[in-house]
Amino acid sequence: MNKLNVGLIGYGFMGRAHSNAYLTVGQFFDIKYQPELKAVAARDPDKVKQFAHKWGYESHYSDWRKLIEDPAVEVVDIASPNDTHAEIAVAALEAGKMVLCEKPLGRNLAEAQRMVDAAKKAGKRTMVWYNYRRIPAVTLAKQIIVSGKLGRIFHYRAKFLQDWTISAAVQQGGASWRLDVDVAGSGVTGDLLAHCIDTAIWLNGELESVSAMTETFIKERQHQVTGKMMAVGIDDASAFLGRFSNGSLATFEATRYARGHKALYTLEINGEHGSLAWDLHDLHRLQWFDHKDEGALRGWRSIHVTDGDHPYMANWWVPGLSIGYEHSFIHQVADFVNSLDEKKPAEPTFETALETEKVVDAVLRSASSKRWENV
Amino acid sequence: MNKLNVGLIGYGFMGRAHSNAYLTVGQFFDIKYQPELKAVAARDPDKVKQFAHKWGYESHYSDWRKLIEDPAVEVVDIASPNDTHAEIAVAALEAGKMVLCEKPLGRNLAEAQRMVDAAKKAGKRTMVWYNYRRIPAVTLAKQIIVSGKLGRIFHYRAKFLQDWTISAAVQQGGASWRLDVDVAGSGVTGDLLAHCIDTAIWLNGELESVSAMTETFIKERQHQVTGKMMAVGIDDASAFLGRFSNGSLATFEATRYARGHKALYTLEINGEHGSLAWDLHDLHRLQWFDHKDEGALRGWRSIHVTDGDHPYMANWWVPGLSIGYEHSFIHQVADFVNSLDEKKPAEPTFETALETEKVVDAVLRSASSKRWENV
Amino acid sequence: MNKLNVGLIGYGFMGRAHSNAYLTVGQFFDIKYQPELKAVAARDPDKVKQFAHKWGYESHYSDWRKLIEDPAVEVVDIASPNDTHAEIAVAALEAGKMVLCEKPLGRNLAEAQRMVDAAKKAGKRTMVWYNYRRIPAVTLAKQIIVSGKLGRIFHYRAKFLQDWTISAAVQQGGASWRLDVDVAGSGVTGDLLAHCIDTAIWLNGELESVSAMTETFIKERQHQVTGKMMAVGIDDASAFLGRFSNGSLATFEATRYARGHKALYTLEINGEHGSLAWDLHDLHRLQWFDHKDEGALRGWRSIHVTDGDHPYMANWWVPGLSIGYEHSFIHQVADFVNSLDEKKPAEPTFETALETEKVVDAVLRSASSKRWENV
Amino acid sequence: MNKLNVGLIGYGFMGRAHSNAYLTVGQFFDIKYQPELKAVAARDPDKVKQFAHKWGYESHYSDWRKLIEDPAVEVVDIASPNDTHAEIAVAALEAGKMVLCEKPLGRNLAEAQRMVDAAKKAGKRTMVWYNYRRIPAVTLAKQIIVSGKLGRIFHYRAKFLQDWTISAAVQQGGASWRLDVDVAGSGVTGDLLAHCIDTAIWLNGELESVSAMTETFIKERQHQVTGKMMAVGIDDASAFLGRFSNGSLATFEATRYARGHKALYTLEINGEHGSLAWDLHDLHRLQWFDHKDEGALRGWRSIHVTDGDHPYMANWWVPGLSIGYEHSFIHQVADFVNSLDEKKPAEPTFETALETEKVVDAVLRSASSKRWENV
Repeated sequence: MNKLNVGLIGYGFMGRAHSNAYLTVGQFFDIKYQPELKAVAARDPDKVKQFAHKWGYESHYSDWRKLIEDPAVEVVDIASPNDTHAEIAVAALEAGKMVLCEKPLGRNLAEAQRMVDAAKKAGKRTMVWYNYRRIPAVTLAKQIIVSGKLGRIFHYRAKFLQDWTISAAVQQGGASWRLDVDVAGSGVTGDLLAHCIDTAIWLNGELESVSAMTETFIKERQHQVTGKMMAVGIDDASAFLGRFSNGSLATFEATRYARGHKALYTLEINGEHGSLAWDLHDLHRLQWFDHKDEGALRGWRSIHVTDGDHPYMANWWVPGLSIGYEHSFIHQVADFVNSLDEKKPAEPTFETALETEKVVDAVLRSASSKRWENV
Repeated sequence: MNKLNVGLIGYGFMGRAHSNAYLTVGQFFDIKYQPELKAVAARDPDKVKQFAHKWGYESHYSDWRKLIEDPAVEVVDIASPNDTHAEIAVAALEAGKMVLCEKPLGRNLAEAQRMVDAAKKAGKRTMVWYNYRRIPAVTLAKQIIVSGKLGRIFHYRAKFLQDWTISAAVQQGGASWRLDVDVAGSGVTGDLLAHCIDTAIWLNGELESVSAMTETFIKERQHQVTGKMMAVGIDDASAFLGRFSNGSLATFEATRYARGHKALYTLEINGEHGSLAWDLHDLHRLQWFDHKDEGALRGWRSIHVTDGDHPYMANWWVPGLSIGYEHSFIHQVADFVNSLDEKKPAEPTFETALETEKVVDAVLRSASSKRWENV
Repeated sequence: MNKLNVGLIGYGFMGRAHSNAYLTVGQFFDIKYQPELKAVAARDPDKVKQFAHKWGYESHYSDWRKLIEDPAVEVVDIASPNDTHAEIAVAALEAGKMVLCEKPLGRNLAEAQRMVDAAKKAGKRTMVWYNYRRIPAVTLAKQIIVSGKLGRIFHYRAKFLQDWTISAAVQQGGASWRLDVDVAGSGVTGDLLAHCIDTAIWLNGELESVSAMTETFIKERQHQVTGKMMAVGIDDASAFLGRFSNGSLATFEATRYARGHKALYTLEINGEHGSLAWDLHDLHRLQWFDHKDEGALRGWRSIHVTDGDHPYMANWWVPGLSIGYEHSFIHQVADFVNSLDEKKPAEPTFETALETEKVVDAVLRSASSKRWENV
Repeated sequence: MNKLNVGLIGYGFMGRAHSNAYLTVGQFFDIKYQPELKAVAARDPDKVKQFAHKWGYESHYSDWRKLIEDPAVEVVDIASPNDTHAEIAVAALEAGKMVLCEKPLGRNLAEAQRMVDAAKKAGKRTMVWYNYRRIPAVTLAKQIIVSGKLGRIFHYRAKFLQDWTISAAVQQGGASWRLDVDVAGSGVTGDLLAHCIDTAIWLNGELESVSAMTETFIKERQHQVTGKMMAVGIDDASAFLGRFSNGSLATFEATRYARGHKALYTLEINGEHGSLAWDLHDLHRLQWFDHKDEGALRGWRSIHVTDGDHPYMANWWVPGLSIGYEHSFIHQVADFVNSLDEKKPAEPTFETALETEKVVDAVLRSASSKRWENV
């Protein structure tokens, strides 16, 4: 079998999720290129060595530039904090590598645009880890929409609710870089809302304009590294109203202050003939309402998306037995390696993901201007 | 409009539910006979007077025999404890009255048989308050079954789970007559399981044989009237396996020791082409699985049974607005009064309800004999 | 017992719901004044006569002014279309009557203000039928909030989703007055969103500012009376972002174009220590998350609000047996008649309900100005 | 790190699940012995070669005896059909190997007993793949029970509902060996009910006696290999009532004829102070009712078992992100390899699993005798 030599940058939560996907994909999917764990780079020399050993990476670097220079590496996978995305991606593309990048593309639209420009110039394949597209229930939603069963679309709504930063004792900076605006770029808008926007654009087309509101509930937090109390620069909560190109209305919300919800990403789309709803807390189910069902027997169907005729599921177990979060990454790797011989890239590419960054940018602009902003 | 003069015996929980049905039915249903609250009888003269006043009964008696002798009363409604059912029903039938009776028919099969014999001899209309048949979602289940959509039936299962007698401080006797075997006849078998059996026979046909188990978890309880600790004669829990005439298998259970469940009557029926499930805690919903749905889109539908084309619902509000427990009695009264000019009686009659008593009897026999018993 | 003589105007959906409440309340609640169905008024002389006969109103009028002049009438209950509210209410108050009025107060803020002014001048009791406050699960939510269990509030979100006007064949005007802007004043904003706003203010305090969006999906509909195609003046969908005085964020939405939802009013409130959620399709349940529960055992509790220690429920059946939509009106009548001897009125009065009208007004202004508007 | 050399027999559904567990466990758990994929054996030489290649087994055999003779193999893992379990296990134990075996132990109690005897004689470690014990939500249920929070237990009920053999076109024999009594030993009793029984004994202690019923709905099926129509020897459905040693009542059911259910394993346990419920279709949730909660706020909690303080979950992702079916096998491998230096074995051993076989045997005896049978 052909090989695809992977160089990973970052060994945190996402580094593990990606590594697991590379390691496992070949056992469950017919793939044209077997990912090889060639190299991993991260700042701490001891920890990166340990990580390389645990996952079987052949080499390890404490400087990501070395990894990019490594001729054995064909694709660079960026799983490090947001403030590193643009610089690494541009460098890797200039070095002639394919690039996979964790979302969001950059800390802001300017960084994202630079990454897209570099990808175009290099003519290399790129992909962004908006992994929720490949939860089987979400992919099934896409298939239903593409089939035309929904008819004219009226509403699309999405939420991403968490509750892990409610305590004032949660710090910013360091390992808590998601709360540090210099590293993260924004708060829940780029972290959570971006997921909602990517799926929305995929399922329902482009957003044209938004009116947004953001809030930072806790104004100061201690910095993990310096120990100093510092102003919090990120948004804790973000919501927007919007209009899609297809005439449907958007209502979106993300927060880390919704007590009782851990990672409750929900989406719903209402069409003339049917509606779909999904949420990440029960990710193996898709809710489907078909108005064409016999009148008195109409009802929301809870589809347990675990059958062989459901997306990706023929590769797993038997009907009724569910898979989890990490499998969305395995599916994305399978699609990526199998796209290498195709003309069409595995989506979303940098260019596709730029659309999400444009919406994120419009949301933040609108929250600041207190006016509707075009995307 | 024609009148139907009602004489009620008993003013407890059921006396209120029936009275409310008589009072309200004409405002919501096209009825051929308007129930008139003619008389009420119960042992305590003061309380029965108060009750009569509150609900608008024209006269009241502390001796039920007076009520039966009252020539103004056309139909006698028995809502008093189980030990009074047979005596009152037989007397009322012999006096030429129609009789409505709370379930179960009698304390045991012999009493029930006497009631059926009296009804036959008198040639008068009878009806038993197995009210759950007329919850709209249950009636809809019946319609789906009758339509043949389920195909061959394999399984029928039902449970009735409560938790109100777990405390050893709950007394027996007096107002707690349901725990006094002399008054109630049996425990959960006649009280709760009987409901499950009535619905089952209605939906799935007759039961042929059963193997049962009963248990009394708390062996002694204080008597409410005498204050004495006395052996508990009722069954606290009762379960049985069985076989229906149509070849399907039965699994039934009732208990008052299922912590967290207040009145969780559940039923499910599995057929070749579809399945149905319902429960009393969400009584306005019917779960429906149709195997003929398109493969990848199959799922249990949660039908919100509140539309105008759902049974009884055109008489109430608008789609989405639910009705409750008490409405099942209103529906039963509507069906009863509208059956008076018809040849077919409103079901279940005494004769029909006898089938349930036969199963109850077989369950208790089997629990005692520890063998399969024919119904 | 004391009497309270009621004069009802309008015999539609709401006329029935109110009449049922007057008729039934005394059987289930200890009330200080028994409502008497004194008179009903509506335009069609035949139909109003029939309605009076069915429900037992002593007299009937085809001109509501006659009803107001009727000295026997103590309280005027307005259940006619929105365009009649202000005129009738002002006239009734000037005639010295108490006034109950269906929501929204008027077609617009100016009408609502006139009604409030008239009430103040007359010094008479008023009440608006925002009935959802008295669904037991919603009242329980209020009790939990008042107890302080939620701590600082971060988010309040509400939706009211319906799907009954998706078909272009639905007409406007006549019986479909809710789609006729001249009669209704607005579309879903005044009809559905107003319910969400009233509950929100009650549970979470005042809204300070909003950014809204409205849409009319179907631009022309036939008029039911004239048969002519006419421009649709109402909003089919309405959503807003907002900020409450307590610093929490608001996300609200109402629509009649959400396929699969009949009357899905949902609300959720997230506080520092707990969260609450409720929806009208399962109105007997309250979802409650308590962060103070033991860590590994935390979870959303589904409270089946049917116990004797739940609001209003001691007056109904036994635990586990649910009540429905209509009971919220019965509870409101009980509270109203029992407030007559109290200093504190039964809420919401006209004055209280004006707050909702102010938000509705700000929402419509913002949808038009495309800017944030203060309430 | 220490190694543990594994020899796998069988490459079907279970062979894949086990292999994945061996391959992945070290990346997510701190383990004392790293499983090495040493050898795999299965009848078809080409397929076993392919499988070995795909999963990285160093050697492969078409005769399982060769694998047992392979000195490199330390532990033999039996994932082949039921009729091979006893013979292989006994041979492996006699050869001094540790043995892991898919459930059920053997085709019948006699075979199971032989396996237990061999294990005792050999003094070697054994384990049976009753994997559902290690679904985090089920393990959490065990922890709650052990904590004593439930008090006296009254009821335990379990069901395992599937629908994949309803069509008469499903064959028996060959790859469909689960429908061939000679290979499988029994139908759903050994296949599905055995899972329910193992968990039940673990959570609630031993069963003492049962009354059972079995049914074969489709009497003849074509044999996959011979093409001949043959009588079906297995049970399609199986249910029993029973009594546990702790005085609680058992109601169990398994079937492959419950339309709409794919692998719906459900369990519920009701105690004096609380209740627990779980099902495999939403395996990441545990339902928990605590009667000690404040009265009006009591409700079933839906615990989303994905936090770091939930069993096994600290090794996976972050709160809210779920894992799936296959992870139960990974957990079992982790526990097994980490038990190797301990005195206490990883449960269930052959000896422990024999209890389940005794109940299975009693169920089949009772279904035949139509009497209660002691375990």
